[in-house]
Order: sequence, then structure tokens, then C-alpha cells
Amino acid sequence: MKTIINPDPKTFKSLLSRPQNSEREMEKVVAEIFQEVKKKGDAAVRSYTALFDGVQLETIQVSKEILETATVPKKLQSAIQIAKQNIEAFHRAQNTAPIKVETMPGVQCWQEKKPIEKVGLYIPGGTAPLFSSILMLAIPAQIAGCSEIVLCTPPNSEGEINPAILYCARVCGITKVFKVGGIQAIAAMTYGTESIPAVYKLFGPGNQYVTAAKQYATRQGVAIDMPAGPSELLVCADDSANASFIASDMLSQAEHGADSQVILVTTSQTLSAEVQTEIDLQLNALARKSIAEQALENSKTIIVDSKEEAVQIINFYAPEHLILVSEDEPYYLSKIVNAGSVFLGNYTPESAGDYASGTNHTLPTNGYAKQYSGVTLDSFMKTMSFQKISKQGLEKLGETIEIMAAAEGLFAHKNAVSLRLKSQNDE
Amino acid sequence: MKTIINPDPKTFKSLLSRPQNSEREMEKVVAEIFQEVKKKGDAAVRSYTALFDGVQLETIQVSKEILETATVPKKLQSAIQIAKQNIEAFHRAQNTAPIKVETMPGVQCWQEKKPIEKVGLYIPGGTAPLFSSILMLAIPAQIAGCSEIVLCTPPNSEGEINPAILYCARVCGITKVFKVGGIQAIAAMTYGTESIPAVYKLFGPGNQYVTAAKQYATRQGVAIDMPAGPSELLVCADDSANASFIASDMLSQAEHGADSQVILVTTSQTLSAEVQTEIDLQLNALARKSIAEQALENSKTIIVDSKEEAVQIINFYAPEHLILVSEDEPYYLSKIVNAGSVFLGNYTPESAGDYASGTNHTLPTNGYAKQYSGVTLDSFMKTMSFQKISKQGLEKLGETIEIMAAAEGLFAHKNAVSLRLKSQNDE
Repeated sequence: MKTIINPDPKTFKSLLSRPQNSEREMEKVVAEIFQEVKKKGDAAVRSYTALFDGVQLETIQVSKEILETATVPKKLQSAIQIAKQNIEAFHRAQNTAPIKVETMPGVQCWQEKKPIEKVGLYIPGGTAPLFSSILMLAIPAQIAGCSEIVLCTPPNSEGEINPAILYCARVCGITKVFKVGGIQAIAAMTYGTESIPAVYKLFGPGNQYVTAAKQYATRQGVAIDMPAGPSELLVCADDSANASFIASDMLSQAEHGADSQVILVTTSQTLSAEVQTEIDLQLNALARKSIAEQALENSKTIIVDSKEEAVQIINFYAPEHLILVSEDEPYYLSKIVNAGSVFLGNYTPESAGDYASGTNHTLPTNGYAKQYSGVTLDSFMKTMSFQKISKQGLEKLGETIEIMAAAEGLFAHKNAVSLRLKSQNDE
Repeated sequence: MKTIINPDPKTFKSLLSRPQNSEREMEKVVAEIFQEVKKKGDAAVRSYTALFDGVQLETIQVSKEILETATVPKKLQSAIQIAKQNIEAFHRAQNTAPIKVETMPGVQCWQEKKPIEKVGLYIPGGTAPLFSSILMLAIPAQIAGCSEIVLCTPPNSEGEINPAILYCARVCGITKVFKVGGIQAIAAMTYGTESIPAVYKLFGPGNQYVTAAKQYATRQGVAIDMPAGPSELLVCADDSANASFIASDMLSQAEHGADSQVILVTTSQTLSAEVQTEIDLQLNALARKSIAEQALENSKTIIVDSKEEAVQIINFYAPEHLILVSEDEPYYLSKIVNAGSVFLGNYTPESAGDYASGTNHTLPTNGYAKQYSGVTLDSFMKTMSFQKISKQGLEKLGETIEIMAAAEGLFAHKNAVSLRLKSQNDE
């Protein structure tokens, strides 16, 4: 980890640059797989699964029996249950009432949220089965009231899905689980195949191929949760922070992947040195040590003189995860505008939000916290607006519309009002 | 207009297909202009403005003096004022309180909305100056609290901007107006130039070039309001509807552009015939008759036997605008899930929402109402989540996190909790 002291804001851009992803180079292969899946449906999905996952599948959908009997150890069942309750409580609270305003007498305007009917969830496979992402996506989808929830996840070389993934899917009420991964999964949910339904919006994490495929899907008329990049954490801490805790959080971010990034911003030279010592100490005990080591090469400690500078760096970087341990927490809370999820104080590790505090762990990376929200209940809904104008209301509002329409040169727009006003006068 | 009676749902896809746009073919020219603007900044903007708008600009920004003295006739001023008040009232009501939940004792989770700091508004030029779009975008941007609002709109061949556009910008408190249109405007707001600030999110309507440019901008890290397509209206009406009013609404949609689309779905053969007669009658009086006539060629009347079938068609088509005039309004309101903005009853013309009822006229076209919201206050904000866990809270939640992290093979995630729990026990 490099240490930088009091950087000039002019250097922020290069100093805080993120590991590059090469999404654009993959576009050709993505376009080809999408084309094949669109044309050949299940047959294409099967052949890509044979090619990439090394398994020839008979049926793509996980059978009802397998889904209903999948299980995990009792202790994990209880843990999943507690996480589920917390996530449900937080996302249910996001259900807001319709907004209704009579903007003028007789002019009623309102707004209602409706579920997106068909959504697709992608869950990566690989060595670590990310079953927690199912909770983060399926729970709000269910609360929103999405009527069709499709889950795709790649099979192992035996053609099987990790039981923790199946168990979580079942406890979240998902009945349609498909053994498909990668670009072909995203393509299948975009166009639909004989087995796999087409959806209106795609959610979930994935490697660079999945990310490129989701980006491509947006140009085929499907929405996505957000553009994705490697995971990242910025820790902002002063002398009130426990260096050992901070180090453990930085390592928990670093173990995600070699392209993860960790930034420590601190007003304390002492803390900076202590954290470095603790990282070296804790690193050796880690199962994923070599991954974490690579990630730490993208990582930096930035020592600043003041809180003001710290805030400037945070808002510039717009971290996915922000851990904030400061004696002056209120100052930071009043100034920070760009961050995905914020973890406050010595006893709030990032892993709490990753799994079980109740907040969503699907968050904007790559600086996108400047303009994108993480996944919330709203991600599974869309807003419709309504208006109902009475005769009397149109009498009041009509002339305004007529004048503006005429000024924009849209006389049929004007006429739609004039006709109605005239008919009222005739009555 | 073609008339179809009781179509088979299997034919919906072709029956309800929209006029194609050829966005993808423009990608080469978009990429080239973006590249030039990125490299050469203002110089590139100036040279494209000379090429496309036929005017050599000295300064790109509209001067303070011009902006502050721009005016429109008194009557239009009052109309704009009324529209502004209604739009403000409806969008201010969308400001919701932060959501806070203690998911477990000592585990506080909350969610706050923060303004997107830098936003860019695009307003097309052309024969009809769409000043109403400024109200629809600048008002929610101001209510959200966006700190930098940039407006780009193309100049005429004299290098000037229509005074109605400048007047609306001023009354909405916009101080940065730039005389730039088309692809080069979107590129300038994406990368920033010497004159034009880079923004985080782009809003506003535009022709196919602007649409393609906005799509391209999303791959450069900038968000957009929504993907766009030609404007469209579906009218669902029964015998309680006034045929003359319906015809006037259909024509007001049709005059937007030759690629606009209008669909009438009705349970009444009588109404269908009457509307057709009224359209023929009213069409002749229109200034934009030839545009409307072309749009009507993309348009259809669909006669159905039942409300159930009508709802099926509406939800399949997912219209940008839906006018609903029915004796059984509650039935439709309970069943419709896919529509941008809904206009209810005989006295609610679409033009009311286009200008002045208070709802936003920036709406999802092209079937995107299935998964995208129109512009709301939320479009100018993003959601941040927060959590703060006490020592006692972590004692309760810690084991859950440890078990789940271990099951996902992420032992540094587990360790971030274990360390903290252990330190508590040590105290």
C-alpha cells in the first residue's frame, strides 16, 4: 500500500483512479452469444454451458424436487433466517404511500409505484457461492410484488448448483431457478428461450463478462440494476478508530478479488502506521491471502491535515462502501454526499452490511455513487403518474395550456383544450 | 388508421410494434464526435456548431445580460408561472423523509436521499422551442438541490436562442446556458470542455442523434434519465367517451412527429367510427397536418369485446401516455401496471400533463414503462444507506455474519466481526 500525504486536489483524478476493466473489448463475444441465444434459444444455452461450464445439461431448470429438498446446516439456516428478517424489515420500511396533490382546484395529480412484473436475478457461481446476494435481490423483489422472478446461476462440472444457493432461493419464494451462467444467462433472460422467461430488468453481480453482457442487454430494451465495477472500500478514520478493526475491514474488502480497491483516508499519522502493521499481521492468517495481497497493490493510504480535505476526497472518490470512524461523526454526515453505503463507528464492520444488518449490499461501484443509488425496494418498482381534471378544473387551467401550446407551435395540443372548453360553454 | 377487431394475444407483438429507430447505425458518427470533443474541447464544439447549425460562435455560453433580459409576452409569462407553480407543488410533495429502522436492538439502518451534484439538461431547438421541457427538468433539479445545473440547447443560424427558452431557464434559476446542440452538446456535458462543465447525469428529449449520444454517454460513466423513443399515446375508451375530444387528443399526439404513434383501444364500435370521422374533420384545420397524417399511418384502432382484453393490450403495449375514459374507471385503475402517465376522464387531455397539470412530461416511451419511471424528483437524487451498530448490537448480530461469511468462503469478512467480538470479551 502506498502512502500519500496531503495530496493536491488536482492530483485526485490520477491518485484515486480505479483498476481498469476492459468491458469494451468483450463486446464482440457478447454480441455473438446474444445473437446465438436469440436465434437458437435453449440449444444455444446448452452448447455454451457445455463450452464454458464443461457440463452437458439435459434440463436447464432446477427441478421442483431438487429445489424443495436443498438444505444447509442448521446453524446456517438460522443465520440466513436472521439476515432475512433484518433485510425484510429495512426494505419493507421503504414502501412509501402514493403521493397525491390537488395542484389547483379540480386538478388532481398523483403518483403510484407498481412492481416491475418480470425480473431476472443473476448469481455467480465459482468457489464461493454468493447466496447472500439472493437475499439482497429476492427479498425486495418479493416485497415489491414482482410477479415473475427468474434466477440464473452457473452449474458446476457435475451440472449441480450449490445447495446454499438453492436453499436461499427457496426460503425467498423463488420457484424458477436455471442452471445457466455468464453471458448466455444474461442473453437468455433478455430474449427468453423455450425454458427461460424473458424479463424486463436484470439484477445481480458478476464477473467482467456478465457486466459486459448486462450493459449489452440495456441496448436490447432490458433495464439493469446499475453498471458494475470491482468492489471497493474507503475508510475514513481518526485517532478514535481501532487500528486492528480498520485493518480487518480493509482486508475483508481486499479478499473479494485482485481488482478490489481499498483507500484509507486519515488525519492521523499514528493510525496510518498502526493500520499498516495490523494489515501485515492479519494478512498471513488469511485463506485468500494472495488475492488480498494483489488487491492491496491497488490500494492507498492518504494522510490529510483536516476533515475538510478528507470530505473532499470522499466525495471525489464516491466509494461503494464508506467506513467512517471519527470523533466528529456529525461533521462528516453533514458533508458526505457521494457514497453507496456508510458504516459508522468502531463496531460496524462492512461485513455487517454485506450480510445481515438489513441494508442492501448491491451498491454502485466505480464512482457511480455520484449518480446511482444502490439496490432498494424502488429498484424493483417503477413510478406511474396520474391526473384527473374536472370540468371546473379545466376551466381554470385550460387557458394556461392553450397559451403554452400555441407558443410551442403545437396547435393540436391547444385544440384538445379549446374543444373541451368550448363544449362546456355550449352546455 | 387501420382497424383491428379482437386480436389474438399471439399477434400483439407485431400488431403493437413501434416505428423503428436506427440508433445503432449512428454509433460511428457519435463515437467520432465524442472523441473530438474529448480531445479538443470548445474548439471541437465550435466547429460542429458551425457544421450542423451553420453558425460560427464567439462565445458558447449565453451571456448574463442576454439571459437576464430575455422575455416573452405577458400572457405567456403568466401561463408559465401557473404551470411552474403546479409542477413545483407536485414535485415538492415527492420529497420523502429519510427511512430509519432499528432492525435489531443496537442495529440502526437508514436511508437518505442526496441530490446528484451536477446535472445536464438538453433542450432541442428547431421550429418549436420546447421551453416546457425546461420547467419539467429544472424545477425538480432545483427542488432536489442539485448544485450545478447546466443547460445546452442549439442556436439558430444567427447564433441565438429562442427567448422563451432563456426566459424559462431564468425563472427556474438556471445560470449556465450554452448554445450547443446535438451530439456535440451531449459529448461536452459528458467530458466537460473549457466552457461547459462535465455532469454526472443527463436529462432531456432530443432527436435520434441526441438519443444515440445519450446512450453512448452511459458507456462513458454518465447516467441518463431514460432511454428514449418516439412519443406515443394509447387511448382506452368506451361509450362514455366524447369522440370529438378523443380525436383531438389523438391528433395532438400525432402532430409531435411523423414517427409518433397513436393507438385507440375501445369496446365500442360506435365510438371507433365516430372518432375516425372526427379525426378526418379536425385534421384539415391543423397547422402540422402533414406530420399528423404521417403519424396516423403508424396508428391503429383496436376493437375488443371486453375490458379484460383492453387491459391486456394496455399492459402489453406499456404506453408513454394513456388516456382512459371509461364508465368503469376503478376496474382499469386496479389492473393497469404498465403506463407512463395516465389521463382520466373526458376533461383530462394529454396536453394538460404536457404543460401544466403538475405531473412530469418526461416519460418512458417504446414500452419502457414496463421497467422505467418517468422523471420524478427521485431522478435528480440518489439514495445512500447508513448503518450504525453498537457493541451490544454486534454481540447480537455478530455470529450471524460470521456463519454466513464462512459459508461463502470469505474468512476476512468473518474475521472483521470475530476480532471485534473478541475485543469486547477482553474488556
